[in-house]
Amino acid sequence: MSFATSEYKERIRKTKERMMQKGIDVLLITDPANINYLSGYDGWSFYVHQMLVVIIDEEQPMWIGRGMDANAAKVTTWLYRENIIPYPDDYIHSDTKHPMDFVAGFLKQIGQEKRSIGVEMENYYFTAKSYEQLKKGLPNASFQDATLLVNWVRLIKSDAEIEYMKRAAIIAEKAMQAGIELIQEGIRECDVAAKIFYTQITGTEEFGGDYPAIVPLLPSGEKTSTPHLTWTDERYKDGDAVILELAGCYKRYHSPLARTVQIGKPKEEMETLSRVAVEGINACLEMIRPGIAAEEIEETWRKTIEKSGFVKESRLGYSMGCNYPPDWGEHTVSIRKGDKTILQPNMTFHLIPGLWLDKYGFEVSESIRITETGCETFAKLPRDLTLKELV
Amino acid sequence: MSFATSEYKERIRKTKERMMQKGIDVLLITDPANINYLSGYDGWSFYVHQMLVVIIDEEQPMWIGRGMDANAAKVTTWLYRENIIPYPDDYIHSDTKHPMDFVAGFLKQIGQEKRSIGVEMENYYFTAKSYEQLKKGLPNASFQDATLLVNWVRLIKSDAEIEYMKRAAIIAEKAMQAGIELIQEGIRECDVAAKIFYTQITGTEEFGGDYPAIVPLLPSGEKTSTPHLTWTDERYKDGDAVILELAGCYKRYHSPLARTVQIGKPKEEMETLSRVAVEGINACLEMIRPGIAAEEIEETWRKTIEKSGFVKESRLGYSMGCNYPPDWGEHTVSIRKGDKTILQPNMTFHLIPGLWLDKYGFEVSESIRITETGCETFAKLPRDLTLKELV
Repeated sequence: MSFATSEYKERIRKTKERMMQKGIDVLLITDPANINYLSGYDGWSFYVHQMLVVIIDEEQPMWIGRGMDANAAKVTTWLYRENIIPYPDDYIHSDTKHPMDFVAGFLKQIGQEKRSIGVEMENYYFTAKSYEQLKKGLPNASFQDATLLVNWVRLIKSDAEIEYMKRAAIIAEKAMQAGIELIQEGIRECDVAAKIFYTQITGTEEFGGDYPAIVPLLPSGEKTSTPHLTWTDERYKDGDAVILELAGCYKRYHSPLARTVQIGKPKEEMETLSRVAVEGINACLEMIRPGIAAEEIEETWRKTIEKSGFVKESRLGYSMGCNYPPDWGEHTVSIRKGDKTILQPNMTFHLIPGLWLDKYGFEVSESIRITETGCETFAKLPRDLTLKELV
Repeated sequence: MSFATSEYKERIRKTKERMMQKGIDVLLITDPANINYLSGYDGWSFYVHQMLVVIIDEEQPMWIGRGMDANAAKVTTWLYRENIIPYPDDYIHSDTKHPMDFVAGFLKQIGQEKRSIGVEMENYYFTAKSYEQLKKGLPNASFQDATLLVNWVRLIKSDAEIEYMKRAAIIAEKAMQAGIELIQEGIRECDVAAKIFYTQITGTEEFGGDYPAIVPLLPSGEKTSTPHLTWTDERYKDGDAVILELAGCYKRYHSPLARTVQIGKPKEEMETLSRVAVEGINACLEMIRPGIAAEEIEETWRKTIEKSGFVKESRLGYSMGCNYPPDWGEHTVSIRKGDKTILQPNMTFHLIPGLWLDKYGFEVSESIRITETGCETFAKLPRDLTLKELV
């Protein structure tokens, strides 16, 4: 297990507090990060239906999942054996049976069928069909949207979580340096991606790395005009810019990091864009402190870059930490206009001022922790456009 | 683009044929593999809502996605620019706006609001909330479950797709050999995982690798009793068995492969288990041919292993090919009792006879193609328990 049992129990206590406030008796948790956060469960089994059930008047949660994954629950969680509930394999990818039918039957069996049931309506792993089947199977229950209920509990990190994110940042720095070192005219994009993957997973001599929730993103050339392309097996050319966005991951905790590399001489417009973005992020890092609202960071960014005539339409960052594919973001706080969340110590954000224009773009990002008096970046690498002279 | 425009058009034609049969006028496709299959779209942007809209009486589909990903759609798809519809960034992870509100508004605007609309109810990327918002936004539409509609079109591969899977298999073989070579007493699990990742992505000198939809799974020791654990930074011990399940991936097409490695002398029970499983898969590979039903393969397996007193409760395999995280399986055909799908040439399956007992387990798998007269495995590696003598 990644944390002391007492830490898991404290997380359950906070979750139940929020359930009480919302009048939820039974919480069905399908977000794999929330399942991990409350139980320790860790396995690549989220491609089939599984959940953690928190019942307001039961001490321990229950894990419900596919039979072959029950041993993984025994190995990775703090739950009693009898709280690990496997369902049979013929519920998998079947057109006649759905795992939520099993869940509904189980909840009936333990007398929960008339209660107020919270479900994570907006989660990758709670499909439209899941909800339909649950409603059919539990006609006397009342359902409530509990999207992000546990995510909000995750917002302020414990010292143990921060320690994991620091380790993740050490890995992120190493992976970024490995990528930057290899990028050069004539090198294939896939070979840079491979080197980054290797470094992310091998980690350091003291600790190994876990798989990040997002693969390295490394658009190059004109493809820097968009952030979410991965790589090809084409070779870099003189004049290409390469955006590297990656994370280190340690025991499911992330420290994302983005930098931009220029092969050969940068165009003047790229020099300007990079200077503006770095000025913008630097201005933010100076003003971030507990007590301000998330949107104030975006305001500082906006006002700094608009002096040079730039506008960024997308949000400037988001809360992050423990996660699984397809996203390392927590989907709670966004650093943008209108988000009035007040910053508190041990909140952690990915601050990502990417600017994507029509034919090129630039990214520089930092993962940060709110401290007692300001903020600190997890990684410590120069932010400027990284120049790679031709060799 | 990965395929000729004519191949994409043929896929659209087949999709519309199925839409006609089901009376669907407008198909909203949220499965990233289906989006890729029909449009070519490829980017790690499926962590936000995006879709491909196929309208029965329109020539081309439309891509709807986040503004910053529109350039990725321009780069990777065969769609006209005007068929790429971006939505503003304030729809992202917002508690007041949902991307499906935008979609509903757009469908109204183009006069589709009263039609029969197909949605993929059982897909990771179509949440319960997505469906609720669509129903609210389009009260005059009738909704139909179109889960797997496009997946069934994907079942029989074109020769171009088979070629990609062959390339994926070359990468899978290399990655498996790299993992097996490194595994030894005293080596850390994460270092083996890192080596596998490196090999998966760097690929060969002729072509690079893409990221598989599932990370390498490599449970060891007692953890071989369950299939979906990833790795730790612990060191292997004399006597450990290690299951390696991984895939090669080329342009989103997969060839999964599993083998089991024994460090030091195997226990007698592991020798028996591995012998039985290999006999079982060999018996299947001999009998598989076009014209038989999927369930007949499972019957052969079951009867072969039950002679030695073994039972496998989980399915024996599934259809696979093009995919994105979290799964490389296509969720159509399962090789198990009750699946009466008749095998046809160029169907492709992952045949995975894993046996997980209480304290240990064994896996050996093959990705196969149905040929005109039988089947062929994509990879060619020995199937027996791989023995690694202590050094």
